[in-house]
Amino acid sequence: MQRYFSKEKIDNRFVLSDDDIYHIRTVMRMKDNDEIIVVNDKKAYLCCLENVKENIGIIIKKELEKIDYNTPEITLIVPILKEQKMDLILQKSTELGVSKIIPILTKRSIIKLKPSDYDKKITRWMRIVKEASEQSHRVDIPKINDILTIKELQNLEGFKYVCSTKEKSKNIKLVMKNVKNCDRINLVMGPEGGLDEKEETELNKIGFESITLGSRIMRVETVPLFLLSVINYEFME
Amino acid sequence: MQRYFSKEKIDNRFVLSDDDIYHIRTVMRMKDNDEIIVVNDKKAYLCCLENVKENIGIIIKKELEKIDYNTPEITLIVPILKEQKMDLILQKSTELGVSKIIPILTKRSIIKLKPSDYDKKITRWMRIVKEASEQSHRVDIPKINDILTIKELQNLEGFKYVCSTKEKSKNIKLVMKNVKNCDRINLVMGPEGGLDEKEETELNKIGFESITLGSRIMRVETVPLFLLSVINYEFME
Repeated sequence: MQRYFSKEKIDNRFVLSDDDIYHIRTVMRMKDNDEIIVVNDKKAYLCCLENVKENIGIIIKKELEKIDYNTPEITLIVPILKEQKMDLILQKSTELGVSKIIPILTKRSIIKLKPSDYDKKITRWMRIVKEASEQSHRVDIPKINDILTIKELQNLEGFKYVCSTKEKSKNIKLVMKNVKNCDRINLVMGPEGGLDEKEETELNKIGFESITLGSRIMRVETVPLFLLSVINYEFME
Repeated sequence: MQRYFSKEKIDNRFVLSDDDIYHIRTVMRMKDNDEIIVVNDKKAYLCCLENVKENIGIIIKKELEKIDYNTPEITLIVPILKEQKMDLILQKSTELGVSKIIPILTKRSIIKLKPSDYDKKITRWMRIVKEASEQSHRVDIPKINDILTIKELQNLEGFKYVCSTKEKSKNIKLVMKNVKNCDRINLVMGPEGGLDEKEETELNKIGFESITLGSRIMRVETVPLFLLSVINYEFME
């Protein structure tokens, strides 16, 4: 069943955005009495449509049961990558339960964004995680943070790790065994060429422990999928 | 460093395909004495080029150290999906160490291939896994099996699982704890609408145990990435 996020609830009705109403009317061609699911304030509701063609009404029929995923809040800290890779990361990490994405500026990023383009990019990324949240039946949408530098990552709470290629780093399995019962995990990944050594040292200084993901050589966009799969798995009951 | 697979070794030289020689000469514009890595018979060698412009020679300098991944042989059994999703699965599961892909025909596949198109598709898939193997520095290339029906899956050896949405199925974490020290794992995943109930029952009858991947709703192309990430993680030392 089609799902939409709503920001406003008035009595037993929801208000949807113009884009969503266009989607219901024109893309999905829904009719009166058709059912949709509307998510509001982290709860999902079965709703039914009335008067679709004119002043559409979205009427609550019942609240749906909540699914508990057991996973902690996961913040993924990711360099700005080429559009296709960035989109894939946003979509897949939303499916796999990421809570927040912090885009960061790193030395080896191939993409050099002008600060004047930041807002446009963030709007695009917000649209992608919203759509992925609907498709994966989430009751929340991952937050997209403003673009930060590495220095600005110093006040994050929770467990903090940076994906490293240094041989001496602990592997993620050793580390994950210690993060049971944690509320928040922050994970930094590097761009295609990896983080610069100075950047990794800077992260280590502000509390990010270097970890490796084993000996496989993964493309940059595979890294967050691996990380999030493993966290979901480790917190599975 | 650029990597190529070679099927033939003559004394201290490798023979590469015409495509790879075109890539070296025209795409990479390499010169005499440039180095490449050539993989032959599951071993990787540092090589150096001579006489690039005319009768190119690929001379072995030394054999490179082998990386041990500890993972069992993984066969991924996957319905025929739309090209973009199929390509992503092939690329990413190669990165994550799949040994063999068996494409299968399922009732709910949207894609209906004509048998006359099978060979063309298989050639395309073989090219994708070859390129992904080079990029992820593998010393072997996943095998692409002929397209099979579910009935034809009955003689596979090793542990056998089918991804299910049935609530009663065990979750993958419970199952993975029992597959230590195993040589082979066979994993069936369904198409977008899932496997038909009869298909799942048929698989159960020929030894495939139904498992769930937790409560997250993943797109079809995310499933193999999750499965392979988790197996890599579980077999990490």
